[in-house]
Parts: sequence; C-alpha cells; structure tokens
Amino acid sequence: MQKLLEEIATTAATNPDKGRVATYIPELAGTDPNQFGIAAAMADGRVFSAGDADVPFSIQSVSKVFALALALGRVGDAMWTRVGREPSGLSFDSVLLLERENGIPRNPFINAGALVTTDTYLAGSSPREALGELLRFIRAAADDDGIHINEKVARSELATAHRNYSLAHYLASFGNMQASIDKVLGTYCHQCGVEMTCRQLAMAGRFLVDGDKMPALVSAERRRRINALMMTCGHYDGSGDFAFRVGMPGKSGVGGGILVVSPGRASIAVWSPGLNPYGNSKLGTEAMEAFARKTGWSVFGVPQGHEQVT
Amino acid sequence: MQKLLEEIATTAATNPDKGRVATYIPELAGTDPNQFGIAAAMADGRVFSAGDADVPFSIQSVSKVFALALALGRVGDAMWTRVGREPSGLSFDSVLLLERENGIPRNPFINAGALVTTDTYLAGSSPREALGELLRFIRAAADDDGIHINEKVARSELATAHRNYSLAHYLASFGNMQASIDKVLGTYCHQCGVEMTCRQLAMAGRFLVDGDKMPALVSAERRRRINALMMTCGHYDGSGDFAFRVGMPGKSGVGGGILVVSPGRASIAVWSPGLNPYGNSKLGTEAMEAFARKTGWSVFGVPQGHEQVT
Amino acid sequence: MQKLLEEIATTAATNPDKGRVATYIPELAGTDPNQFGIAAAMADGRVFSAGDADVPFSIQSVSKVFALALALGRVGDAMWTRVGREPSGLSFDSVLLLERENGIPRNPFINAGALVTTDTYLAGSSPREALGELLRFIRAAADDDGIHINEKVARSELATAHRNYSLAHYLASFGNMQASIDKVLGTYCHQCGVEMTCRQLAMAGRFLVDGDKMPALVSAERRRRINALMMTCGHYDGSGDFAFRVGMPGKSGVGGGILVVSPGRASIAVWSPGLNPYGNSKLGTEAMEAFARKTGWSVFGVPQGHEQVT
Amino acid sequence: MQKLLEEIATTAATNPDKGRVATYIPELAGTDPNQFGIAAAMADGRVFSAGDADVPFSIQSVSKVFALALALGRVGDAMWTRVGREPSGLSFDSVLLLERENGIPRNPFINAGALVTTDTYLAGSSPREALGELLRFIRAAADDDGIHINEKVARSELATAHRNYSLAHYLASFGNMQASIDKVLGTYCHQCGVEMTCRQLAMAGRFLVDGDKMPALVSAERRRRINALMMTCGHYDGSGDFAFRVGMPGKSGVGGGILVVSPGRASIAVWSPGLNPYGNSKLGTEAMEAFARKTGWSVFGVPQGHEQVT
Repeated sequence: MQKLLEEIATTAATNPDKGRVATYIPELAGTDPNQFGIAAAMADGRVFSAGDADVPFSIQSVSKVFALALALGRVGDAMWTRVGREPSGLSFDSVLLLERENGIPRNPFINAGALVTTDTYLAGSSPREALGELLRFIRAAADDDGIHINEKVARSELATAHRNYSLAHYLASFGNMQASIDKVLGTYCHQCGVEMTCRQLAMAGRFLVDGDKMPALVSAERRRRINALMMTCGHYDGSGDFAFRVGMPGKSGVGGGILVVSPGRASIAVWSPGLNPYGNSKLGTEAMEAFARKTGWSVFGVPQGHEQVT
Repeated sequence: MQKLLEEIATTAATNPDKGRVATYIPELAGTDPNQFGIAAAMADGRVFSAGDADVPFSIQSVSKVFALALALGRVGDAMWTRVGREPSGLSFDSVLLLERENGIPRNPFINAGALVTTDTYLAGSSPREALGELLRFIRAAADDDGIHINEKVARSELATAHRNYSLAHYLASFGNMQASIDKVLGTYCHQCGVEMTCRQLAMAGRFLVDGDKMPALVSAERRRRINALMMTCGHYDGSGDFAFRVGMPGKSGVGGGILVVSPGRASIAVWSPGLNPYGNSKLGTEAMEAFARKTGWSVFGVPQGHEQVT
Repeated sequence: MQKLLEEIATTAATNPDKGRVATYIPELAGTDPNQFGIAAAMADGRVFSAGDADVPFSIQSVSKVFALALALGRVGDAMWTRVGREPSGLSFDSVLLLERENGIPRNPFINAGALVTTDTYLAGSSPREALGELLRFIRAAADDDGIHINEKVARSELATAHRNYSLAHYLASFGNMQASIDKVLGTYCHQCGVEMTCRQLAMAGRFLVDGDKMPALVSAERRRRINALMMTCGHYDGSGDFAFRVGMPGKSGVGGGILVVSPGRASIAVWSPGLNPYGNSKLGTEAMEAFARKTGWSVFGVPQGHEQVT
Repeated sequence: MQKLLEEIATTAATNPDKGRVATYIPELAGTDPNQFGIAAAMADGRVFSAGDADVPFSIQSVSKVFALALALGRVGDAMWTRVGREPSGLSFDSVLLLERENGIPRNPFINAGALVTTDTYLAGSSPREALGELLRFIRAAADDDGIHINEKVARSELATAHRNYSLAHYLASFGNMQASIDKVLGTYCHQCGVEMTCRQLAMAGRFLVDGDKMPALVSAERRRRINALMMTCGHYDGSGDFAFRVGMPGKSGVGGGILVVSPGRASIAVWSPGLNPYGNSKLGTEAMEAFARKTGWSVFGVPQGHEQVT
C-alpha cells in the first residue's frame, strides 16, 4: 500500500495539468496547485501516506459528511422529511430543482441540502456550541485533538456567500429553515472552514468503515446509508462519473480534498487544490481512479481476493 | 438462501398494498398484481427461487442493461460521446435536461439514452438482425434458448410510443440518431418486449457477476462500470433511494421486474407487477430491501463475513 | 364615462366570486374582499370615479412602474444592461430563468427585476433619501402631497421577505446588486408599501398618457416604452391574457390594484383585493375587460372614433 | 409614406450588417442576404412599396397568423382549451414549458402551438383540402389569386423537421393531437412554404386592420385579439423587445419576413433574409423601428395626430 501511494504521488507530481484552483473564496484563491497528498487508514489500524499528506487544507464540502452524521444522530430518520436522497443532476448550488420540489433539497450533499443539515444539528443551540459538537465528532473520529477551524477562511467565505444566503432564504420561504439565516450561514461557513491534513482526514473517515478497530460513532446501517449517499451524490453532477471510474463512495470539496471509503477495508483521503470542470479535485480524482484500478477495490467488482495489495 | 427467498415470497404475498400496475402499455394493463417471484443465481452455479419465479413477464427497461452491454461491445467507449453517465434527477422520459445539454442524454438507462443505445447496436444492420443479436446475447448469458420476444406486447407498445418518438426526433434534431426513427423505435419496442421468468432473468444477469463459473461476455472492467451505472441511474429518479435502501446495483422495468447484482456473489431477479410512485416494482423493491438486510450484501457494508446466509 | 364607471362598480358589487385576498403579507391578509373602486383621469383633465375610489390601499407591485421611471431617469438606457425587456413566462418570483440567464432578470416588473430597479434608483443615496425621491415623483405625478408609505405594511412585508431576499442574494452572486442587500430590501418593501386611493393612483398614472394637460415627467419615447413593458410584462404570467382580454398596458399589484393606461386618452385605476389564480385582482381584471369592451379603447382596435363614450 | 418607405429601403441597402440567413432549411440557405423590401397597405386602400417589394419569399412563421384566423373560424374559443395565450419566454421550439404544462403550448405562435393550430384547421379534412382552404383565406385577404405554396421549400422543410416531429409526438403523448402526426407535419410544412411578395403580404394583412375598405374576414373583436397575441408573442423570446422598440403587433418568420399591423391605419410587410440572434429579420426589425419612430404609430403613444405622414 505504501508503495502504491508513493507511485500515485509521483505520477501526480509529474502531471502537467493540475486543474484550476477555485477562486470564489478569496482566502483560498492563492493556494499553490502543485501540492498533492494521499493517505489511507486501514481497517486493521495501519496508516499509510505519501506526498503532502501532512499539509493542512480546507476540507470545505467534505465536511458535509460529518455534518450529516451529526444531524442524523440528532434527529434520526426525521431528517428525510426535510431533504431528499436523490442525485440532483445539476450543479452544486442550483436552485432549479428546489423550485420544482417546493423547497426540499435533493440530497444533503448539494449546498441547499447541506444548509438543512446545518440547520438540523444547530437545533436550539448556539453556533459556537454546535460547531464545538461538530469538532468533537471529527476529533473523536480522527482520534486527534489538533483539528480546528480556520477562522480566516470561514470569514472569507461568509463574506462572499451570496449564493448560499440565497438558497437559505429560498428554503426559509418554504418553511424549511428553523434557525435564523445568519446563524445557519455563520455555522455553515465555519463548518466548511475545518482544516485537516490528508492523514487526519483519512483517520476521520474511519467511522464509515466497518471493522473492529474503527471508531463506532454511527450504527452499521447508518454507515452503509451514508456511503450510499456518497456514491450517488458525493460529487455533484460528476457523481455518476466518479462511480463509473472509481467505484467507491466519495465526497469531494472545493478545497481539493476527497474522502473515499472502501467498505470494510480503508478510509482514503486525497488532496490537490486544482479542480476539474465539475468542481472536484482533478489530480485527486485521477489518483483515486488509479488507486481503484490497482487495488481492485471498486465495490462493483469482486468483493474479496484482490486486497493482497496491502 | 432457499429459506430466505421463501420467507420473502411469503411476506410479499401477505402485503395488502401491491402497488399499481402500469396502464400506458395496453397489453400489460391487465396483468394480475397478486403475482410475486424471486430467483437468485449464485456465483458457485446454484440457483434458488420462490413464488412465481417461473411465470414469464415483460422485462421492459431491464432490457436496457443487455442492450448497453451489446452496444458497448460494438463501439466501445466511443459510445460515451453520444450519451452521458450521470443520474438525471428527473423522470424517465423527461426532455428538460436533453434541451439543456444539446441532445446528449444523461445516461443510457433513461429512455432518451436507451434510444441512443439501440441506435448504436443497430448500426448498419436491419432491426431483425439486431434483435437477433440481442436475443443471442441474452440467451447466451442465461444459457437458455427459450427466451423470446412477445410480439403482441412490442406492437402494443409501438402503437402508443409518442413520447419515445418525440425523444428520438429530438435526438435526431441534434444529429444524435443514425438509423431512421422508425427503425430505432421498432427495434426499441421489441427490445422492451423481451419476456423472461425470474429464474431466466437471474441467470441472464450472471454476466455482471465476477466468478469463474459465470459467463464471460464482457471484461471485468466493463462489468464493474455497468454495475456502477445501475447503482447511480438504474431506478430513474428513485435511484438514490434504491442505493440508500438496498445498496446493490439494480435495474428496474415498468413490467415490474428488477435485476439486482451482488458483485462476486449472485445475480438476483425479482418480479411483481404493481409499481411504486417512481415507476419501480413496489413489492420487488421492498423484497430487495429485506434481502439486503438479511444477507448484508449491501456493497456499502462489510465486503466479507455475512455471506454465510447461503 | 361617469355612468360607465358606476355601471362597472355595480356589476362588481353583485359578483358573488370576489377572488381570494393574498395572505402572505400578514398586514394585508385581513382586508375586506367586498371592496371595489375605480377612477379615470382623462387627458383633458377631468377625473371620474365610482365605488370605493377614495379608500386607500397598498399599491404593492404597481409601484414598480414609478420605480422604473425613476431609475430610468437616473441612469437612462444603461439600465438595460442589468435587466431585460422580455416577458418571463413564469410566476413573479421564479428563479428558474434567472439561473439560465446569469443573473439578468427578464424584465423590471418581475420581483428580481424590480430589485435591480430599486438598486438602480438607490444608487449612492440612503434608503430614506431614495424613498423620499420616489414619493416626490409619485406626488408630482398625482399632484397630491397626501400620498405616503404605510410603515406597518412595509415592516410586515420585510419580515416575511425570504423569497425576495433570496432573489437579491442570487443577483448579488452574479454581481448584479450594488447597494447592500439589506438596504435594497428595506427600500423595496417600503416602495411596495406606498398607499393610494384609486383616484390618487389614476392621477399618478397620467405621466404615462400623452397630452398637453398631463404631467411631463418622462419623454414621449420613454412613455411609450414603459407602456410597452406594461403590455408585455405587467401581469406576470397572466400578461398575455390581459393583453388579449383588455388590450391596454396595465400593471397589477398583489394588493388588488391595477393601473391601466389608454395612450392619449386616460389613466385608469381599479382596485379590489380578491385575486385570481395569476395573482392579479379578479374583479379588477373583469372590470377592465368590460371597460375596454364598452369604450373600444383596446390599442389593438380602431385608434379613433369610439371614444365618444366620454 | 412613399418617401418614408424609400428612405427606409435606402438605409437598409447601405447597412453593412445584414444579419445571418437561416441555414436549417436547406432550400432557403442560399438566399441572397442583400435583399430588402417593404410595403404598406393603407386603411384607405392605397398601397405603397419600396425596395424588393415584388420579390417572392417564404413567409414561414408569418403563416401562423393566417392559420390561427382559420382555426379560430373553425372552432372559435374552444381552441383556447388546447393552446395558451401567454408569451413563452423561451425560444421558438423549446419543449421545456411544454413539459411543465402538460402538453398545452404557451401560445399559437411558438411551433408547438402552431402545430395545434394546424391540427385544428385540419379537423376531418385531408391536407390537400385544408391547405386549399388556407390558400383561399390568404388570397381573399390579399385579393390576389397568384399566391401559392413553394412545394420545393415545403419538402425541404419536411425532410429536416425532426424538432417539429418531436413536438408533435410530445403533444400527442398528452392527447393534444387529433390528426395523424404525418398529416399534421405535412400540412404544417406546406403552410410554412407559402410564398408572397412584400406587397402581397401587406395586402393579406389588411384583415387585421379595422376599416371600411378592409376585407372583413374576422370580427372586430377577433381582430383585436389576434393583434394582441402578435404583440405579446409574435417574435418568440424577442417579443418584448419588438414591443419596446416598435410598439406595433407583428409576426416574424425565419424566411426574413415580418407582418406588422397598425390598427385602423395600415398593414405593413417588410422582408430581408438576414436574421438577428432572436431569429427575426435584422434589417426588417430595424426598418420597423425607424418606421415607428417616423410615423409615431406605436400603439403606446398618441392615438391620433401624427398620422399626417401619409
């Protein structure tokens, strides 16, 4: 596995097309696109990594996975009355389907749905308390108290969050927001501003991997269901393509990070800031495609045998 | 496994809500909703079944899986220039996204995409030849020469195919149809009219299961990719829900059949004519949910261990 | 004319179906639907009225006409780089087309376009100054210093303005908002809260009527163009129907008021709080249809002759 | 008037930007863009013309006006149960709104609506009979038996009519087509293939002008209503702009012709084959804008006085 990750990091380093760094969050616009890191936390407890796996980055939308787990922990299946479970077929901040469907976002991984998720785990508490709880969840998952929120990024994001404000007010107009818009947006932007290294993110993703040595933060059934949502909705309107090419549940963020789960085997984190046209990490996606090919870990192929790669 | 299938068949038989039989194909409108069959063809060669597993039914859109395999065999990845790989987020015969995307259907499992698939495997040949080839593929997959097309159903379908004619002409207006519209529609409606029993369909689905005893009709990589498409797009705008609840790749048809693949383990076919609001078999979906829960075969959970069910 | 207005008022009074009063602005929800007023300010200076023509009501979206004139006075045709001139084909607060067209609202009479209008006349000034200027414009047009803003209605509207906040943030995300969202929304809701009687509104509409005795607040060309916009876009997705049935430029408001212009002849105001399914005054629309039939003032018929009605 | 038309023709001749000739109908693609004709048939019986006013051209969608009058003559207001009266806000052959509105086209001047119109006047008769009746109507309106259909253009159009076939089948899938699709399309393409000169078209448009010397083919009320539809829907998604700039009811065709009505005054026809981005004649639109400015005939300005231009 170590050798595989190093090969992948080397291939990425020599790829001349790094994709384009997102510019709409001013604080992130200056990130160096020549960075690439990858880490894998195995079900047996071992952790491997290569490249810039210890450089912290903004996890952005990858945070939606942790937020969803937290919100489901709060209200359980009642959440599904406020948000759907279907791929949206449209870009991450589209309002089109929201209008067709009376304010029920398609799924919790597009922005509208994630705002409902944030509103759900906010419940009656203050943003500070809610974010504290989110951090505790992530730190417990990663077994690492060093994970924190980058306040500067969060504020930079909040200052340019017109599209998300628009979605939140739109949801509110259908009665699908409970806390005040400002609270929800403040919390949401801080959630997106969580910073981790690949190694930390791979560790934090272990709660989605079945296994005795994995942190038991959610039930096996919920684990499977979150993985299913990551598979069908984790990459916006590029979800089908990721499933086709990689074949593992994954959630990407505009900061260039991707968290991928190999059920029963490992949690993998990859990061490179340049994005492809879908808004997902270009080198990260390509790396995961190579990873899946080499390991045979696509959930759509043989479920046993190939994993001698380790 | 035999016991499990029988339990599931019994539960289905006592469920008072059978869903609603589709009425838009006159020839199918009169089907008795009180029928339920299930069959599983295992990777080790054994076959189990329960209920009305030997009653033939119209596979309808399940045929899109075989048609896709055939078309990919013809033109390979060139096919992806004419059709996408993303869930549509909309109902099976919607034109909305087609307009947004210049005549490239979202995926090969919505009707517009399936028309492109049919046009692809038609290529230069006559409908008769093309359908002959499709039947040969299905019979080889199922190891059963008794599989045929119900001519009456095909004609009934063709006579009421205005929406599909509309989609085909729409595609043609973007240059995304090669054969004549009448040929494509005639072939497509006959393809939908293929008739099988649950046992035959489970057998025919084995080409999507990795295993030494399975028919090697497509490469391992293509197998994984077709499974990925079934997972993200196999149930129209209910695909996310099926992934969430069942967690296995599946393709449904309006005749009430569903083909489900457990990679490396089995091909499962279930059938009951009453549909849920998404247009997928109601009892069939519920049966597969129970099946997944009992077997632990969700691809999103543990990849080994649970399968002692057999 | 006096006789005609009285006949129309009598017919309205006896109509059992008054339409439904809008409920989404709490302060207006309690309005008595049994009210009906009509007034006509003629090009020769005479004014006629009947029914509840001296009861003040909330002009709501009728204010968009005055706001547009004011904004055009500020920036001239430069305004048309920020807003279009086409009917939207969709309801008044839809975001669908906004997404298709990169944040350029279809026309200044749907809410998104009106927010751009407000942002335009706000320019660098404070909401208080801008609203003062708007009131001066309306008072000058109506030759009546008694016209004011109902502060309670404005605040009630602001408190439930999620949909409009959503549109404003959406526009801002495309760079099509200059002032702060809060300023624009505050100003917009106060603009909608202008209160007039039918008599006052008919007087205020005279600046859109060509004639020596009419207030010359805009050029003849601008007058024609505003009238054209009222014809094609003045009644949301009921604009075509109003043109078909009435044949005069008109602008409706959710408070039940309609301002109608007969070019060269008169400005007519009608009011009744109950709405039809398009969100336009039900009795008001029917009254204007009868008015047009009796007077022959449709712009699509003979331009001279019939007006002996006076 | 003669002098005005000649000035306008001269201006057009010297304009370097002629727009782009439509290429999707092969038979029309080769038309010389340097042609420009204009003609006006006055309410008092006089006819003026300038430029290439005697060159026949394909009226294409201008035919929708005559077809609508014929269909209304057949079934009266019952027609409005099958087609709406609202501007579509979208391009002429869009299916988007058709899907939203269950197969009821927005208005009779977009293609979907015109197909319903054709189906309506076809009724039980053969295409030959129906087209004969349409030609009789047009010839009576123009007082000219020399008007005919260009068979070559009609066939060229039919051979590339995929989008219109798509719309017709779509309508049929909602039960909004009565005759067979092939009959409707054949009739529709021949209707579009009617050929006239500007002089003939101006004459034919007189039935929409109120006046003693005008042909009385429809009632005054129907005349006004057809004019209203031309104003709000006559130029597809450029209708608002035409109303804004010209201020008279008009209907354009992709062949470069525009029929404009000045109620009570004149019927005007202008033709130049190059189109603007909306698909309307570029020089024709500009000519009508100049014409409206010079004559003051916008229906949105003074209804009397200016017409001394004659």
